[in-house]
Amino acid sequence: MMTIRRFQEGDWPQILPFLHDAVEAGDAFAAAPDSSEADLRHDWLVAPRATYVACADDGAIVGSYILKANRPGLGAHVCTCEYVVAQEARGQGIGTLMCEHSQLEAAAMGFRAMQFDLVVSTNDRAVRLWQKLGFAVVGILPHAFRHRRFGYVDAVVMYKEIVTPD
Amino acid sequence: MMTIRRFQEGDWPQILPFLHDAVEAGDAFAAAPDSSEADLRHDWLVAPRATYVACADDGAIVGSYILKANRPGLGAHVCTCEYVVAQEARGQGIGTLMCEHSQLEAAAMGFRAMQFDLVVSTNDRAVRLWQKLGFAVVGILPHAFRHRRFGYVDAVVMYKEIVTPD
Repeated sequence: MMTIRRFQEGDWPQILPFLHDAVEAGDAFAAAPDSSEADLRHDWLVAPRATYVACADDGAIVGSYILKANRPGLGAHVCTCEYVVAQEARGQGIGTLMCEHSQLEAAAMGFRAMQFDLVVSTNDRAVRLWQKLGFAVVGILPHAFRHRRFGYVDAVVMYKEIVTPD
Repeated sequence: MMTIRRFQEGDWPQILPFLHDAVEAGDAFAAAPDSSEADLRHDWLVAPRATYVACADDGAIVGSYILKANRPGLGAHVCTCEYVVAQEARGQGIGTLMCEHSQLEAAAMGFRAMQFDLVVSTNDRAVRLWQKLGFAVVGILPHAFRHRRFGYVDAVVMYKEIVTPD
C-alpha cells in the first residue's frame, strides 16, 4: 500500500539520491544535469507551492512530486507538476498515483488546469501515461529539449482542465 | 526612422507609463494588472537577459521589449520575448520591427528558437502578426488566460526556430 503525504523536514536525504540521478540523466527534466544539491533543493523545496512524497509500506520514500503555478498573474490559475520515482521502484504505478493525487491537491488549492510545458518526446512512457490520465497533447515544440544523449529532440506541451469551465 | 537599441539607465521613466497601462489592461500580459512599479521593474529590467527600446526620430521611446531564456537548463536554448508599444504609437509597425530585431539578437546570443507561451487568443492582432513573422501555432491552451474583461479565454502557444536545426 502506497501512501502519499506532504514533504516533512528529514525527507530530503531520501529524495536527493533519486532526484539527482533523474536530473543527471538529462532525458526528462529541464534542470541542468550538473545541478548542485543547492539547485535541486531550490527547485524541489523552495520554488514549489508544495512538495509531496510517496512512501512504500515500510515508510521508505520511493517517489516525490512538486506542485506550483505555471505562470504569474493572469496565468496563475494553471499549475504544473514534476514527478520523480526512484529507479528501483519504477513500473509499480507510482507515477500514476502521484499524478492523480496532484490533480486532487491542485483542484483543492483552486487551480483550474494543469500543464506540462516540456514533456520530452523520447520519453514516450511519460507521454502515454499523461494521455491515459486525461492530458491532451496541445502541440509539439520542435527541438525544444537538449537531450543529454540524443541532442535536440522535440518536446510535447500537455494540458488538462481539472475544474469544469464556467 | 525608428531605431532600436539596448536599454540605458534613464530610459525607465519613459517606459513605465505605457508598460503600466499595457499590464493594467489585463488583456495581453500575464503580469498581474495591479503590478507595482517594483514588480514591473523586476519583470522588465532584472529578470530578462536583455531589455531594448524603440525610439522615434526625436529620440522619444515609443516601445520596448525584453529577451530571456524561456526555460532553465536543457530548455535554455529556447528564448522568449515580451513586446510593448505605447498606445499613441500603435499601428506603425513598431511591433514588427521589434520582433524582427529580437530574432537577430536572440540568434546572436546563441538561442536556437523563440517561444511565446501564452499569447491571448482574443488578441488576434498579435496572433496574426507573429504568424506573419514566421511563428507557428503549436496549439491552444483552453481557458489558460484570465482576461480582465472577458474572463477565462484560450491562450496560444507559438514557436519559431531561428537557427536551422542540425
